[in-house]
Amino acid sequence: MNTTDSQPNVAVVCGGVGAARLLRGFIGLVDPECLTAIANVGDDMVLHGLNISPDLDTIVYTLAEAVSAERGWGLEGETWQAMEMVARYGATVGEPLDWFSLGDRDLGTHLFRTQALAAGADLATVTAQIARTWGLDLRLLPVTNDRLRTMVTTVDHGEISFQEYFVGHQHSIPVTSVRFDGAAQATPGPRVIETLEQADRIVVAPSNPAVSIDPVLAVPGVRDVLERRRDDVIAVSPIIGGKALKGPADRLLVELGRTSSALGVAEWYREVVGTLVIDTVDADQADAIEALGVRAIVTETIMSTPAITRALAELTIKS
Amino acid sequence: MNTTDSQPNVAVVCGGVGAARLLRGFIGLVDPECLTAIANVGDDMVLHGLNISPDLDTIVYTLAEAVSAERGWGLEGETWQAMEMVARYGATVGEPLDWFSLGDRDLGTHLFRTQALAAGADLATVTAQIARTWGLDLRLLPVTNDRLRTMVTTVDHGEISFQEYFVGHQHSIPVTSVRFDGAAQATPGPRVIETLEQADRIVVAPSNPAVSIDPVLAVPGVRDVLERRRDDVIAVSPIIGGKALKGPADRLLVELGRTSSALGVAEWYREVVGTLVIDTVDADQADAIEALGVRAIVTETIMSTPAITRALAELTIKS
Repeated sequence: MNTTDSQPNVAVVCGGVGAARLLRGFIGLVDPECLTAIANVGDDMVLHGLNISPDLDTIVYTLAEAVSAERGWGLEGETWQAMEMVARYGATVGEPLDWFSLGDRDLGTHLFRTQALAAGADLATVTAQIARTWGLDLRLLPVTNDRLRTMVTTVDHGEISFQEYFVGHQHSIPVTSVRFDGAAQATPGPRVIETLEQADRIVVAPSNPAVSIDPVLAVPGVRDVLERRRDDVIAVSPIIGGKALKGPADRLLVELGRTSSALGVAEWYREVVGTLVIDTVDADQADAIEALGVRAIVTETIMSTPAITRALAELTIKS
Repeated sequence: MNTTDSQPNVAVVCGGVGAARLLRGFIGLVDPECLTAIANVGDDMVLHGLNISPDLDTIVYTLAEAVSAERGWGLEGETWQAMEMVARYGATVGEPLDWFSLGDRDLGTHLFRTQALAAGADLATVTAQIARTWGLDLRLLPVTNDRLRTMVTTVDHGEISFQEYFVGHQHSIPVTSVRFDGAAQATPGPRVIETLEQADRIVVAPSNPAVSIDPVLAVPGVRDVLERRRDDVIAVSPIIGGKALKGPADRLLVELGRTSSALGVAEWYREVVGTLVIDTVDADQADAIEALGVRAIVTETIMSTPAITRALAELTIKS
């Protein structure tokens, strides 16, 4: 840490669900003005004409305590009238229309975002307004205002968008490669690089390395900062006992030529992460991880209670 | 009439609410395959990224007996979760976001339409699918697949879109002129001209002449057919006792230099309409209307019961 202050500046590199949960641990732990989430936009898409940003919304809804506990995404108290109507119209033209469920309340967010973007606002501005509306104090920055799309090459369906893979095929089909369309031309969003350079600690959330964190790193300049500041970068492994708690991170690591383990995560991140927090069940991998030149910290990482979540967050900034 | 057949081909030139009500009178009266509604798209707009076609939807929802009886537009059993959320986000960028209310079920229609248009379908195809989904048998044709926008010049707000005038300002501000943006470049939709040419009777619904029927006539070729077939064209006056039952037709006629009366409607339509159906309360204007060269038929025109509606529909094709 560059500071002995009890209020370090923390930048959290985020995907969706896992990141949102870890961010909850920082609320009340660090001053909101010292907490910045830099979020993936590779899952973003235009569906039915609407601009949808799944990871940004998952973070907002989760931190606002408005996320559906049952689903882990979308809003509590949601109704589904619009999508029931869409399903009724059916897929007579173009692709199937109702594979991605949009709740009625959630639609309000997308309608607002779409209108605001069409009116000329950038994604950072719109996101800040959405976060403010939900009463959030932290800074939530999309990694870029530009178009960035995570594309997945599958064995059976060729190259498809991340959401078609993740939601449409329920991430149950084999993947051979991932690329981030638009990343090379993207510019980091306002304050993204500055925040990463000035943070006392950069935390890589327990999100999917291949499809949630990598697209953030693919925006020119971002990976460079993390490489340079590797000693101040700490990641939380999303793989516990060889498995992802949620989503396809475990299978993807294997399909992309790594191993589905804490060690595999360390191998994936070794150039940009100085410290990896791994779960107690993976304690036996600590030596192998350290042999890669990555410091390993063993602790409880399943954020099943607020106390565990807070302890995990605290550990990422105090160790 | 060109035929003595009891099943004449009927083409109804339509705006929204008044036209939808008259169309109800034709259901069961003529074979569905002999009934074509040619509808205004000048009220169409893109809002929150969604393609909205108010008159087409009003016709579909009304004929499907799904329209809100209380509101006269939109759907029964509607919820408003999405718009409540939009209102919560507020108007921080661009124009106010919640002046045009979209119910959650209604949103499903717009989501379907937007996705289908984006996938390359034309408005006629999408509209046919929407009508089929709601179990309608008649042919519902948008007058054009092209972009056509009714623009209203107001004294206090300059030129604004029809919906901004009609909904945003609740049509309570003075208008100096109306124009149909895109009309001159528009092509009639598939079967529109053919239907008008082959119909035994062309009925001009009791819609607003200035902003609902005129945009239909403004599509190149449409007005020509009606002029040529004037003797087979019968209109129902939307002005009864000097007033419009709904909307600003009465004020608009005056603001645009005519009189708000059945006679004013006859003057407006005299070149394209051979017969005008007027209400019994306006019987004293029949002579003046006929003096213009327009045949006047006096009957009950307020469609307050199914029997009156059906009698009015029957009269338009049998007299």
